[in-house]
Amino acid sequence: MNSDEFRAAAHSAIDQIIDYYDTIESRRVVSNVSPGYLKPLLPPGPPADPEPWADIQSDIESKILPGITHWQSPNFLAFFPANSSYPGILGELYSATFNSANFNWLCSPAATELETIVLDWLARLLNLPECFLSTSKNGGGGVIQGSASEAICTVIVAARERYLHSLATAGTSVEECEEVIDNNRSKLVALFSDQTHSSTQKGCQIAGVKYHSIKVPGSATENYVLTGPLLRKSLEELTVRGLHPFFLTVTLGTTGTCAVDDFASIVPVLKDYPNLWVHVDAAFAGAALILPQYQHIPAPFEHFDSFNMNMHKWLLTNFDCSCLYVKTRKHLIDALSIAPSYLRNPFSEQGLVTDYRDWQIPLGRRFRALKIWFVMRSYGVSGLQGHIRNSLRHGESFAQWVRDRADIFEIVVPPAFALTVFAVKTAVREESNCLTKVVYEAVNADGEIFITSTVIDGIYAIRVVGGGPKIREEVLRRAFSILVSKTEEMLKAEDAPKLNGVNDAKGVTKINGEDGENEIKLSGVSTIAEVEQGVKEVVQAGIPGIEILASAVRE
Amino acid sequence: MNSDEFRAAAHSAIDQIIDYYDTIESRRVVSNVSPGYLKPLLPPGPPADPEPWADIQSDIESKILPGITHWQSPNFLAFFPANSSYPGILGELYSATFNSANFNWLCSPAATELETIVLDWLARLLNLPECFLSTSKNGGGGVIQGSASEAICTVIVAARERYLHSLATAGTSVEECEEVIDNNRSKLVALFSDQTHSSTQKGCQIAGVKYHSIKVPGSATENYVLTGPLLRKSLEELTVRGLHPFFLTVTLGTTGTCAVDDFASIVPVLKDYPNLWVHVDAAFAGAALILPQYQHIPAPFEHFDSFNMNMHKWLLTNFDCSCLYVKTRKHLIDALSIAPSYLRNPFSEQGLVTDYRDWQIPLGRRFRALKIWFVMRSYGVSGLQGHIRNSLRHGESFAQWVRDRADIFEIVVPPAFALTVFAVKTAVREESNCLTKVVYEAVNADGEIFITSTVIDGIYAIRVVGGGPKIREEVLRRAFSILVSKTEEMLKAEDAPKLNGVNDAKGVTKINGEDGENEIKLSGVSTIAEVEQGVKEVVQAGIPGIEILASAVRE
Repeated sequence: MNSDEFRAAAHSAIDQIIDYYDTIESRRVVSNVSPGYLKPLLPPGPPADPEPWADIQSDIESKILPGITHWQSPNFLAFFPANSSYPGILGELYSATFNSANFNWLCSPAATELETIVLDWLARLLNLPECFLSTSKNGGGGVIQGSASEAICTVIVAARERYLHSLATAGTSVEECEEVIDNNRSKLVALFSDQTHSSTQKGCQIAGVKYHSIKVPGSATENYVLTGPLLRKSLEELTVRGLHPFFLTVTLGTTGTCAVDDFASIVPVLKDYPNLWVHVDAAFAGAALILPQYQHIPAPFEHFDSFNMNMHKWLLTNFDCSCLYVKTRKHLIDALSIAPSYLRNPFSEQGLVTDYRDWQIPLGRRFRALKIWFVMRSYGVSGLQGHIRNSLRHGESFAQWVRDRADIFEIVVPPAFALTVFAVKTAVREESNCLTKVVYEAVNADGEIFITSTVIDGIYAIRVVGGGPKIREEVLRRAFSILVSKTEEMLKAEDAPKLNGVNDAKGVTKINGEDGENEIKLSGVSTIAEVEQGVKEVVQAGIPGIEILASAVRE
Repeated sequence: MNSDEFRAAAHSAIDQIIDYYDTIESRRVVSNVSPGYLKPLLPPGPPADPEPWADIQSDIESKILPGITHWQSPNFLAFFPANSSYPGILGELYSATFNSANFNWLCSPAATELETIVLDWLARLLNLPECFLSTSKNGGGGVIQGSASEAICTVIVAARERYLHSLATAGTSVEECEEVIDNNRSKLVALFSDQTHSSTQKGCQIAGVKYHSIKVPGSATENYVLTGPLLRKSLEELTVRGLHPFFLTVTLGTTGTCAVDDFASIVPVLKDYPNLWVHVDAAFAGAALILPQYQHIPAPFEHFDSFNMNMHKWLLTNFDCSCLYVKTRKHLIDALSIAPSYLRNPFSEQGLVTDYRDWQIPLGRRFRALKIWFVMRSYGVSGLQGHIRNSLRHGESFAQWVRDRADIFEIVVPPAFALTVFAVKTAVREESNCLTKVVYEAVNADGEIFITSTVIDGIYAIRVVGGGPKIREEVLRRAFSILVSKTEEMLKAEDAPKLNGVNDAKGVTKINGEDGENEIKLSGVSTIAEVEQGVKEVVQAGIPGIEILASAVRE
């Protein structure tokens, strides 16, 4: 493809992309292809000789788009949003063009320096404590990671190394230090509430450390929040068992219900556990910190070690763009640099030169700061704030509509950050769980909107979350109407409705979740009683944040 | 930015991108901005209100491009190439458009299914053994990762878990199993040759396991290759020390000298170490396997566990696109899924449904298969092979020119895969090391071409590697002329030349390397003797793959 061919191809692609965005609402939001749909549509291997772009482009519409779940559709109310924006797309375009590996400063100084600059801009927008800025005395700063899960794994590794080396710094020899570390490696334990996203568990698995989940209480009037006293109790129990608590994830906006942990009550506990690395997972809700009414929240974070939010969720920056901040970059570099510390330049730890490869798991990195820069400039602070305010207003409207239909719906937790979690109201919990699931599956099977479900404290609930820039009040109105009519239909049905396509061998066979982490496939169930039984088994299995995807219930 | 504004902005961006590519040869290949150049050029924070695209776009030329090192320039002969291509850019454009998180199949079935399909296409192009295909009986398959370093870390974690759990499967209780694992976790050790890329060491640091580097011999006529006997010796020594060897990286094309380990002699050793996970790192040179003359190489890989090559290096697919293949996907899923195995669907392990989140460290993932698909179709197999053949032919030409000037240059290892490693010839090694470094730094300081250096077995050498699609024979001719005239100039100089800007406090202060991993900053040196001393110190420190970047030698 030469330059002229590329100009024609790219212009044609841009037209297709604009058309896709302008008409996205008319597409079925969640793909309903069957597993394996694509292979028969493609040849068994690449062509021997070049194909023209026109042939490739036409295959996008005919072969790829049927298999796309349209995350940018205003009818996408599932998981959390993954905002795209035109300036974000342009950022990806230029990043692909420069295509430098950016593992160190010299690979493209602009890539490193713009990242430092825009992450400082973002830190101030979010009102993070000064200690997380690149200019802080303590040597903090931000780095773009691919995902919150990657960010969390990275800080778990840094925390593990900090903890282990703190055990071994008593003027002993290298061999003695190593022995101390070896003897204690298996005693390390990370903590999190049972509402914490599974990425902390996964990070622990990768880092090879134990983990402990703290059950937190909640209700329709109090969200499921980790508090200082609950944390202290777990810390003491673990210590008694001979384990070393070294890491804690606290959350600003849990995946299931957007709970905000009680940071203020957690801070005093840390005085007794000075070596505990505290990470704030604000992957989704962190974006709301750019609004004045939330800017008091980050004040306690100055007592914590790291903070993460994803611009690629709710802040109009295309995936991937997860912004991780640390209070002391030295801890990242100590764990992740392959240079022995005696050969490292103190300047790089002080921020004169930053080699971001030592702040992350991979070596190479894309030039992702460009898209943040484009987005911030194209929207301005007012535009970004306006977007978040819109989402919040829509969320409040939706929650109010649910409350107004207290005859058929119950609110499960206090609505927060554009998320409403609710269930079908019946006298008996088992019946509610079952009906909510049936409504949820029927709605997704129709495919006019895409929603997610969750199981919270034994309650099967529907999650509706806005946040997409294309969402308008009338779109949400329609979504609510769909939910109401499905619910009324199910409540009226005299007999248990038969579920489609779920008549194979029985049993719980697959799990997945509201952020993809837990999913249950109930095969062989064809009556509500059987679905109910399946849900019960899953709830008993104690897996947090469960959802059951209707469209996954097929073979 | 609405659709009309985006159309205008994107068309203008495409024109700028084409112009950039068409004139890239005229730009200074390596950026010569000073650290911190960008901050004074940008405002202290994002604008309050939206800025028009025209303002943003003009800043790309004036503020960003001076800080770009032009990896796509034909004068870029450093590190390894990171090929961009127009079809690859279009792939990134559509990926950014769909912008789905793709953590499981339903997030966008097309993203998962196209990935499986094109990775099977690639496996066949590379002539990988059948066991690495998604259709294999053993349940193998490929997955796109961000970088080779991420891929290697991923398989180290999988190998660690496989090994530890194999110790504990003697019908014991869960608690007993855990105890066995706890007691052995610190005894695990990974192996690699001292020519292996540092990402294996970094992966070990992340996984929290020990590592052992095997010194391998080499010369101007034999590359630095790991053999079965050398491996066996190390395995035996480690075992005697009470350690458990669990992982080995072998390399097809080492970073320093493109050595290919002796796979055939390693295979029989594995009979005595059946639990040793063997990973093939073919990050750069793996691309050459698409040519018939290399297709015999992968045959022994059927005895190994995983294989990785980066399409984003030499195969025209924009960064990031690292293709990892495993023989048994179950081992990845066992280590990385957060679902307990008793709740997992055997179907997903057999490939009926693939949730790639369980094959990688992060949860979310971009739709990277699109760019592979676009590249393979736009070039066709003939186009891809033609590109690799061109690079190889250019590499052979360059190596011959070096040989033809045996009066001033010595070949350090046999040229391989478009890479030539050579040094300035003098009677005494120390003098050669010093002069080679001086030539290297002077060439990069002039900035007409960008090359990398390495230290191999005490020899300071210059690496010139092609692989970029814009490289032509006359470009390389010019690069060679530059190297010859700089060398002749330095050889003729009666006095040791003073080096620019290296007159600060003395000592080795910073390290970095040919793939970014090791870098030495010699500050406070102003004479060749002092540079020589600094190089010597570094060589003595025994860090493999060292380079000294002239432009980094500044404060």
